[in-house]
Amino acid sequence: MKKLNHTVLFLILATQVLSAQSTESLKIRKQTQQNAKVIIREFTDFLKIPNVAANPISLRENANFIMGMMTNKGINNVQLLEGKTEDTTPAVYGEVLVPGAKQTLIFYAHYDGQPVNPAQWDKKLTPFTPQLFTASLDKNGTSIPFPQDGKYNGEWRIYARGASDDKAGVDAILNAYDAIKKSGLKPTYNLKFFFEGEEEEGSTHLDAILEKNAKLLTSDLWIICDGPVHQSGKKQLYLGVRGDTNLDLTVYASKRPLHSGHYGNWAPNPAMMLAELLASMKEDDGRVSIKGFYDDVIPLSPSEKAALLEVPSVDAQMKTELGMGNPEMKDISLSEAINLPSLNINGIQSGNVGKMASNQIPTTATAVLDLRLVLGNDWKRQQQKVIDHIKGQGYFVTTNDPTDQERATYPKIIKIIANPNGINAQRTSMDLPIIKKVIAAVKATTNDQVVLQPTMGGSLPLYLFEKYLKANTISVPIANHDNNQHAENENIRLQNLFDGIETMGSLMLLK
Amino acid sequence: MKKLNHTVLFLILATQVLSAQSTESLKIRKQTQQNAKVIIREFTDFLKIPNVAANPISLRENANFIMGMMTNKGINNVQLLEGKTEDTTPAVYGEVLVPGAKQTLIFYAHYDGQPVNPAQWDKKLTPFTPQLFTASLDKNGTSIPFPQDGKYNGEWRIYARGASDDKAGVDAILNAYDAIKKSGLKPTYNLKFFFEGEEEEGSTHLDAILEKNAKLLTSDLWIICDGPVHQSGKKQLYLGVRGDTNLDLTVYASKRPLHSGHYGNWAPNPAMMLAELLASMKEDDGRVSIKGFYDDVIPLSPSEKAALLEVPSVDAQMKTELGMGNPEMKDISLSEAINLPSLNINGIQSGNVGKMASNQIPTTATAVLDLRLVLGNDWKRQQQKVIDHIKGQGYFVTTNDPTDQERATYPKIIKIIANPNGINAQRTSMDLPIIKKVIAAVKATTNDQVVLQPTMGGSLPLYLFEKYLKANTISVPIANHDNNQHAENENIRLQNLFDGIETMGSLMLLK
Repeated sequence: MKKLNHTVLFLILATQVLSAQSTESLKIRKQTQQNAKVIIREFTDFLKIPNVAANPISLRENANFIMGMMTNKGINNVQLLEGKTEDTTPAVYGEVLVPGAKQTLIFYAHYDGQPVNPAQWDKKLTPFTPQLFTASLDKNGTSIPFPQDGKYNGEWRIYARGASDDKAGVDAILNAYDAIKKSGLKPTYNLKFFFEGEEEEGSTHLDAILEKNAKLLTSDLWIICDGPVHQSGKKQLYLGVRGDTNLDLTVYASKRPLHSGHYGNWAPNPAMMLAELLASMKEDDGRVSIKGFYDDVIPLSPSEKAALLEVPSVDAQMKTELGMGNPEMKDISLSEAINLPSLNINGIQSGNVGKMASNQIPTTATAVLDLRLVLGNDWKRQQQKVIDHIKGQGYFVTTNDPTDQERATYPKIIKIIANPNGINAQRTSMDLPIIKKVIAAVKATTNDQVVLQPTMGGSLPLYLFEKYLKANTISVPIANHDNNQHAENENIRLQNLFDGIETMGSLMLLK
Repeated sequence: MKKLNHTVLFLILATQVLSAQSTESLKIRKQTQQNAKVIIREFTDFLKIPNVAANPISLRENANFIMGMMTNKGINNVQLLEGKTEDTTPAVYGEVLVPGAKQTLIFYAHYDGQPVNPAQWDKKLTPFTPQLFTASLDKNGTSIPFPQDGKYNGEWRIYARGASDDKAGVDAILNAYDAIKKSGLKPTYNLKFFFEGEEEEGSTHLDAILEKNAKLLTSDLWIICDGPVHQSGKKQLYLGVRGDTNLDLTVYASKRPLHSGHYGNWAPNPAMMLAELLASMKEDDGRVSIKGFYDDVIPLSPSEKAALLEVPSVDAQMKTELGMGNPEMKDISLSEAINLPSLNINGIQSGNVGKMASNQIPTTATAVLDLRLVLGNDWKRQQQKVIDHIKGQGYFVTTNDPTDQERATYPKIIKIIANPNGINAQRTSMDLPIIKKVIAAVKATTNDQVVLQPTMGGSLPLYLFEKYLKANTISVPIANHDNNQHAENENIRLQNLFDGIETMGSLMLLK
């Protein structure tokens, strides 16, 4: 009786799976399972090559390794795309042109990783020696050898720098193409591949590479494979990114540090002045009180608003995981919050705390502000709103240390270094026909919800693709949310890698 | 005609001087002038002995040197006063008991100095190699040899660690006794001498020394010779000191640093929380807004209020010198400000600024507060007022890093480490007969105003003299205000040393 029930349950589940997932998607999955041993061996070889900016020679080794992968998989016209000169880290390009195809998809991932401090990694780990664990270290995963039979449990994890961010992206894209080819599936779009090597360094030469190779890189859509899936484990698509810029503020008080006894109460305290200035920038309910801060914002479209309502709430889960108090803005959800411009204090410093503290009135107080922008905001205009607010608080604003003359003239002086670089937000409409097809294709790989996010909270220079190529973009992340990207103990959950191959393969078969 | 005028002018001035200054004072001055070569040679020998806490052996050498000075000058019962054990730095004691005297004065100075960082000193200087300059370095003074004829210009300066703070005090006291003795002047009070060796280290063992030697140290008044004269150059007397204590505050947000893009606007920012909390502690007019902060304050007496009105204003001079804006409290003078309790931010820190800054939401934000107290304030009660204010701002207050349970329970969490040590303020009444005599004696050494300050802004553990000896105290500083005490390039203006000898000598002749 018990056995029968199980069998019945299995059949019901299988039916549900089949009803939600396309035959093509399942073929890619099967092919990936059969090829798992080769895929993982190639992936670990890839992870063994250090990929940090401090070591540009090894970044070129990564690029060469990727060219080899592409050539092996039958991708054509494989080449390095250099910036203005050849002393910067190149992107890797390849293509599969489909006879008769009128449209082109271009798949993006990056092969460079964040810097590593091995001392911060778990003692069992070495950043560029990939290792297999039965689960995450947090959940007491144990180290096991890579299996000889090619049978992998989806919950297992590979630990190494770049395992998720973003060599998993490179690997998923290339193995997706390999799987559709080996499964006899035929793309109807031209496929192009673009793997960047300077993403973690701020994409310093991406503009030059795009501008120089604009014709080669013509496409109808960039598919950005980077970042994690939803915290709930569901697949998700990002239609945009927030923009970003910074301001450095320094408030000036006395020229020399003063004894807090002999002058305390009388001489102005720059830390208190800065505290009051920063506090003036937010209302009691956490909203930014700077005049016009929320102006310029282009409201979400009906489709985007509808999508936002469908985003599963992870607020309670994240509050517990982070041990944090109430959200900064009253009654706001995480997904609502990231669709608004933000003002964040990255750091603040004046005098000394801890063992170096002394009873003094410091001479200056400094804060670094991070401004995130949404569609409609202009990063220079947003900086100016903050500067105008500070002027409204009675400050004389300068971009240098104040002169004696300025000190004698103005009671309140602040130096503001507005970052000369900024990124505007980017958002692709959910209503574009090609975007609707992408959403449908990803939905066809899962029987679970696909989370549609109008924007991610973070920033990527996607405006460069708009600027130099007039191209649309969509981000299709594949890594597990707890992958420790940018930090120690980076890892990829194997099922996320396998699911990622399936997702990318399905997108390559867009109709 | 011209010559005649000058002569007349001289006679008028000389008459004015004579009318204000006592014959005894002038005798001490004459004796000091005659003995200047010996005094300066002994002083420079004294300054050559390093006197920093890092070198306790050389501190004992200083103590031995002082014992030699005292014995040479005919002071009796010279001895070291040890703390509970002999591994701490001793005080040096001596006395001159006057037959028939019913009252006793005890003269205090300290022989230890602040730490030195020779790299921060002017290249022409070495901290423990005293050198003579024609003026202060700021005013382009040049190095000259010590004159063989013993003729010193009062504007010349000796540069060395301890030159003003406070070996000048030791030197002025001992040479004052030498001068009155050599001038045939007779004290009517018993005279005692007490030279501390741990003042710059926080007088860590002063309580033990006072308690252990309470009987030996019996007196009617402690005369504390430390610190600078008024910024105007006038002599001044301090009747008290502010008290002092500290609080370390740490506000907690998320357990791990967060990406300011993915979580900015949603996750609470501890730097902003701390800024808002600190800003809540002051009114717009700069007054502390913490409930009851100015309660407990014992108002100044009529004499003290009258004295305060007579303090020459240095506000405009100091504002220019410090290049500062308006005073923290609206429409307040420096001398009024130091007669109120204060709340000062010594330091504040969260995340990073400058090159280490990154787009993150920090996990914590820390500030160190310094509370200065006036008579009537109790340091523990003053700490509690701040703690209660913070609770009133919705914070859960803990003395440890918060537990997960506390994080889940309280939206706003702060760790407060209230310094377990504090000093209450001390103020001696200007109306005591012995204080009136001291004021009169100092006035008799000058034809200029003597500035009477009810309190100094800084803190000294004068409450210890009250606690262990039930003793009254008065501070009689002698150094020039621009002596760079506690910093590099410490110096004494010679006229301040000579005037100091005259002041101390006149006090030893109190009637």
